[in-house]
Amino acid sequence: MSSSQSIVLSKKRAIVLGAAGYSGAELVQLLSQHPAIELVAAYASAGREPEAFCSLYPRYTGQLELQVLPWQDTLLEGLAERAELAFLALPHEASEALAPKLLAAGLVVFDLSGAFRLKDPALYPKFYGYDHAHPDLLAQAPYGLAEWISTDQLAQSLFAVAGCYPTASALALLPLVRAGLLAEGAVPVISAVSGVSGAGRKASLSTSFCEVGLAAYGFFGHRHRPEIEQTLGRSVVFTPHLGNFKRGILATISVGLKSGVSPADVSAAYLHSYQHKPMVRLVNRSPNVADVAGTAFCDLYWQQDGQQLVVVSAIDNLLKGAAAQAVQLANLKFGFGESTGLLAGGYRD
Amino acid sequence: MSSSQSIVLSKKRAIVLGAAGYSGAELVQLLSQHPAIELVAAYASAGREPEAFCSLYPRYTGQLELQVLPWQDTLLEGLAERAELAFLALPHEASEALAPKLLAAGLVVFDLSGAFRLKDPALYPKFYGYDHAHPDLLAQAPYGLAEWISTDQLAQSLFAVAGCYPTASALALLPLVRAGLLAEGAVPVISAVSGVSGAGRKASLSTSFCEVGLAAYGFFGHRHRPEIEQTLGRSVVFTPHLGNFKRGILATISVGLKSGVSPADVSAAYLHSYQHKPMVRLVNRSPNVADVAGTAFCDLYWQQDGQQLVVVSAIDNLLKGAAAQAVQLANLKFGFGESTGLLAGGYRD
Amino acid sequence: MSSSQSIVLSKKRAIVLGAAGYSGAELVQLLSQHPAIELVAAYASAGREPEAFCSLYPRYTGQLELQVLPWQDTLLEGLAERAELAFLALPHEASEALAPKLLAAGLVVFDLSGAFRLKDPALYPKFYGYDHAHPDLLAQAPYGLAEWISTDQLAQSLFAVAGCYPTASALALLPLVRAGLLAEGAVPVISAVSGVSGAGRKASLSTSFCEVGLAAYGFFGHRHRPEIEQTLGRSVVFTPHLGNFKRGILATISVGLKSGVSPADVSAAYLHSYQHKPMVRLVNRSPNVADVAGTAFCDLYWQQDGQQLVVVSAIDNLLKGAAAQAVQLANLKFGFGESTGLLAGGYRD
Amino acid sequence: MSSSQSIVLSKKRAIVLGAAGYSGAELVQLLSQHPAIELVAAYASAGREPEAFCSLYPRYTGQLELQVLPWQDTLLEGLAERAELAFLALPHEASEALAPKLLAAGLVVFDLSGAFRLKDPALYPKFYGYDHAHPDLLAQAPYGLAEWISTDQLAQSLFAVAGCYPTASALALLPLVRAGLLAEGAVPVISAVSGVSGAGRKASLSTSFCEVGLAAYGFFGHRHRPEIEQTLGRSVVFTPHLGNFKRGILATISVGLKSGVSPADVSAAYLHSYQHKPMVRLVNRSPNVADVAGTAFCDLYWQQDGQQLVVVSAIDNLLKGAAAQAVQLANLKFGFGESTGLLAGGYRD
Repeated sequence: MSSSQSIVLSKKRAIVLGAAGYSGAELVQLLSQHPAIELVAAYASAGREPEAFCSLYPRYTGQLELQVLPWQDTLLEGLAERAELAFLALPHEASEALAPKLLAAGLVVFDLSGAFRLKDPALYPKFYGYDHAHPDLLAQAPYGLAEWISTDQLAQSLFAVAGCYPTASALALLPLVRAGLLAEGAVPVISAVSGVSGAGRKASLSTSFCEVGLAAYGFFGHRHRPEIEQTLGRSVVFTPHLGNFKRGILATISVGLKSGVSPADVSAAYLHSYQHKPMVRLVNRSPNVADVAGTAFCDLYWQQDGQQLVVVSAIDNLLKGAAAQAVQLANLKFGFGESTGLLAGGYRD
Repeated sequence: MSSSQSIVLSKKRAIVLGAAGYSGAELVQLLSQHPAIELVAAYASAGREPEAFCSLYPRYTGQLELQVLPWQDTLLEGLAERAELAFLALPHEASEALAPKLLAAGLVVFDLSGAFRLKDPALYPKFYGYDHAHPDLLAQAPYGLAEWISTDQLAQSLFAVAGCYPTASALALLPLVRAGLLAEGAVPVISAVSGVSGAGRKASLSTSFCEVGLAAYGFFGHRHRPEIEQTLGRSVVFTPHLGNFKRGILATISVGLKSGVSPADVSAAYLHSYQHKPMVRLVNRSPNVADVAGTAFCDLYWQQDGQQLVVVSAIDNLLKGAAAQAVQLANLKFGFGESTGLLAGGYRD
Repeated sequence: MSSSQSIVLSKKRAIVLGAAGYSGAELVQLLSQHPAIELVAAYASAGREPEAFCSLYPRYTGQLELQVLPWQDTLLEGLAERAELAFLALPHEASEALAPKLLAAGLVVFDLSGAFRLKDPALYPKFYGYDHAHPDLLAQAPYGLAEWISTDQLAQSLFAVAGCYPTASALALLPLVRAGLLAEGAVPVISAVSGVSGAGRKASLSTSFCEVGLAAYGFFGHRHRPEIEQTLGRSVVFTPHLGNFKRGILATISVGLKSGVSPADVSAAYLHSYQHKPMVRLVNRSPNVADVAGTAFCDLYWQQDGQQLVVVSAIDNLLKGAAAQAVQLANLKFGFGESTGLLAGGYRD
Repeated sequence: MSSSQSIVLSKKRAIVLGAAGYSGAELVQLLSQHPAIELVAAYASAGREPEAFCSLYPRYTGQLELQVLPWQDTLLEGLAERAELAFLALPHEASEALAPKLLAAGLVVFDLSGAFRLKDPALYPKFYGYDHAHPDLLAQAPYGLAEWISTDQLAQSLFAVAGCYPTASALALLPLVRAGLLAEGAVPVISAVSGVSGAGRKASLSTSFCEVGLAAYGFFGHRHRPEIEQTLGRSVVFTPHLGNFKRGILATISVGLKSGVSPADVSAAYLHSYQHKPMVRLVNRSPNVADVAGTAFCDLYWQQDGQQLVVVSAIDNLLKGAAAQAVQLANLKFGFGESTGLLAGGYRD
């Protein structure tokens, strides 16, 4: 057996479900270039006709030849012989229904939806509008914020990849929370602006070119609020906004620090958390959402005035906030380098 | 009777149909400030609930209080007692069906659709996809390019307001055609870029924020091609594009001039046509679509090299290319000043 | 004397200084249509050649014929015979130097710069980088937040028109502060995004088309922070951002309410403050910056969750945040209707 | 010696001059990932301080560690021992002065400026505003349109990389010209829109965010016109435009075909020219500039109506229109695969 064949055989084989959407398309693109994962099939919802990926996303013409096929549950039979991993970029309820079947079929599942993120099933009716059908799975599905997942959690088979706003928010706040730097009772105030791709690829008046400007939405009721609060273990005020750009999230976070916490303490907390984490950049000037768009990084920057801290966190909502984080988790799960397949190329804007 | 009352009584009373769309909303805004026309009602399609105009277009909150009501044909009865004019910003087939009824009810009709623009009924199946149900009306409906309409035509009661691309194109080319300056057989090449509002206010993937860039479409088959050719009396190559801005059209037109035609001849032709026309500006530098957006002007600029002429024409597609031109025609029809209600205020971008 | 002549004679005559900049141009446009103020001259800085306003801003071609002349102090002589008002849209230090001269010449001065906004002269070196040369004038120059200025203050002759971010922020917070609804020690957190016109009309890499995205700047040191704090009488966390749009500011403000303060209390505070104020709109859905761009309004919207309140405030930075507010103050000063000249026309985007 | 070492030793070593500009930065990024070229140094103009590339372009933080150093001619000494290639992304006159020195030092030079593109020195005073100091070099510098360069030309050492508009235009028209399909005397009409990055990275009012819209410029006098005409061997009407996007060029080209030329003839001409060319995509729907931005491709699409042909050509102005084409030429010169280093990664928008 030649050496090149042995490399191919050792690749993990993956499928993507929901490949026609924006996050799914990023998964397809990332996996098609991943040196240790082989994308063996990409699926869209059941009703669709098979369609070339490049017909859906003409940008990839000449670079990425692949058919997006309609998914059907009959494909589950013998699926484990063809693939070890599944990435799900599906609506919440579709993920909730399909993930258990993929697990039962023997696959490791990275779910990009919110279906398994909240650990308290009672939150689903309130924030997602339906009762969770598999509450038992919630505890078995580690929350997939890659920089903070533990080795124990990586032994699991179903990963609830963190949401886009929660990724930007929690990466900024967790170092402070874990280091005990926040003032008692301090409620972090998170004001975040997302690009329009966060709303998904669908015809909608609210995301029509002529209608988009800059506006807040969701206020206290957005489903990412309980997700952030669950991760931090404390209440937050979270106000998302829709802005007039395609990709990226900029979260500006204000929080009160404990008396006596110095700038050096804050820096130490961030360095402790991230100095060996390749996908978080502690940058030395205020991050621009245009500089992370198309990258898999989270950029963090902060300034302190007395006991007030303002942290700015910037990600690409479709990458660090979705597809790239899922791949990063797969890298960790399977022992590849954490940034494998996430640095090459990149976006130019 | 006081003088202010007498002014009010002499106002022409108008209704707008299709007030929920982008062009219809511009009509509502223009008429609500028009000193000689009174907007007495605004209608949307039959199925809708009554809705405040400011709920549809929050920009006008506090400035323009008006209900948009569902249209129904029972309103035709006695309509002439309540209004003298109707502005139709409806889909082509809806206009085709409704305009004859409004005429029969005694109103003067300004139709912003393409329903009555083409004078050869045979063009409708080819370019609009349906057979025209009222071919007799085509000849009675003057083509509404305001700078070029004749006094005779103004005596009519149904006006087929010119399309957006045809307005930009024909205003640029007609002075040359009428002055006999074009080379024999010269085929003007028109490359035009429209803002996304030209596609109307509706949910559509192709006009979704994340999908818009800059691309040509329509090529030789766009329905504005025969409209331009009908106006000019000669063939053109017309290539429309969708660009990533909200409002405006920039048409760049190249055409060959007859041997011996000098720059002075060209200038004379434009001056002859437009020096007394308030809504056409012969500008002295290349027009930017941002400088006409929100205005009712058409800006024209040209440069000549030998017998090649390039003319640039810029309009706001919703104003000079739709609503403002309809109002301009009404001004002409009823003997108001041509620019009445079209200059005040304006857009700032 | 005919009645129309008498109307003309009663108009207040105004000059604009700094007419070549974005805010100055808005002043020119607003005053040129104002029914009770006559724009008698527009000036730019001393070195410039006289230039047609339409050459600077081609949008106004055919609508607004005016020369922008170079200012020189020799014009001060006899100026009071030609004008009663001066609007200054100048750099801070230029305003600081010129305003006293205009006052001495007998004019009422509306200064759009920050030169007279801060009442503590010690703040100037820290936030503006220079020592104030006329600290005595600071107390005589009322802070020009139009909805909150008092009759007594209107008797003055020099008005320090409020800054753009401070207008958006203070209009949102003052009703709560004055009604005593904020929790003791609560620090309002203001996260605000401005369009690029806020940076003025000048060549700069940071406002170059290819460089703009969305990023925070200024953090705790922005000069609008002490201005907001002065108005509110309490500390704030203020984080401005530069966004990729031309006009407008959206400020999202989070603040803790006193125990027991109900949504009805909050509504009552806003209604009490603004129900008779024509330029503030208490809107019933989250304001979009695109819906205030080009208007002179401030849109306010809020949601409460327990004792947390989030208020969103949207203005056009060049209008309610600069030129329109100056005109609104002039309207109040001279007894015209508060919204005179500020509602007509408007922007369409 | 191990096999991986031997691969490293065989890499061609390259320097980039003008690395602080947009095209230069693309060169740095492409070369830093190129498997067969090693970027050994990046230079900016003489006066600058050394600066980290990531400080100039924060997007590359954590991915691309490199200092941009000030160039000085003393570096020429012994340069051939450190590098075999130089890529010049400099102003025209700087390239004209430096390229001969680099050639004399023994390097192969890929010049992205216009300094050596026009073969008739008499065109330089007219279109570039200066007399060419090295007219002898013009004939020795093949015009670098990669798909059309000959093996003989590749033996040369100085390459005048084609301009951005000329690349988009000539790739669309050359197949037709070479196949003899154009009508005699037919003058192709090229209307092209470029993103703002085409104007380079510098502070300028005309490329300021608030000033950009969509406007034509240059008309008959743009310096890319003679470049296109030289390549095609016939006159064209070329009208460039500046559009409100960052990257990309869309050229819409209309031209008359010889009598009898069929759609099959046109297709055959394009297939003959490009079916084995990896960086030209003959796409089956109208290309969107957003789908080539960030890629090294040229997308071509055409429609024919009688003897009229409209071709649309889309490129990224900084890549296929500058940096990527230079790398493509280097690939050809040194016998690497034509698309080496040009496909991986890519942009996501």
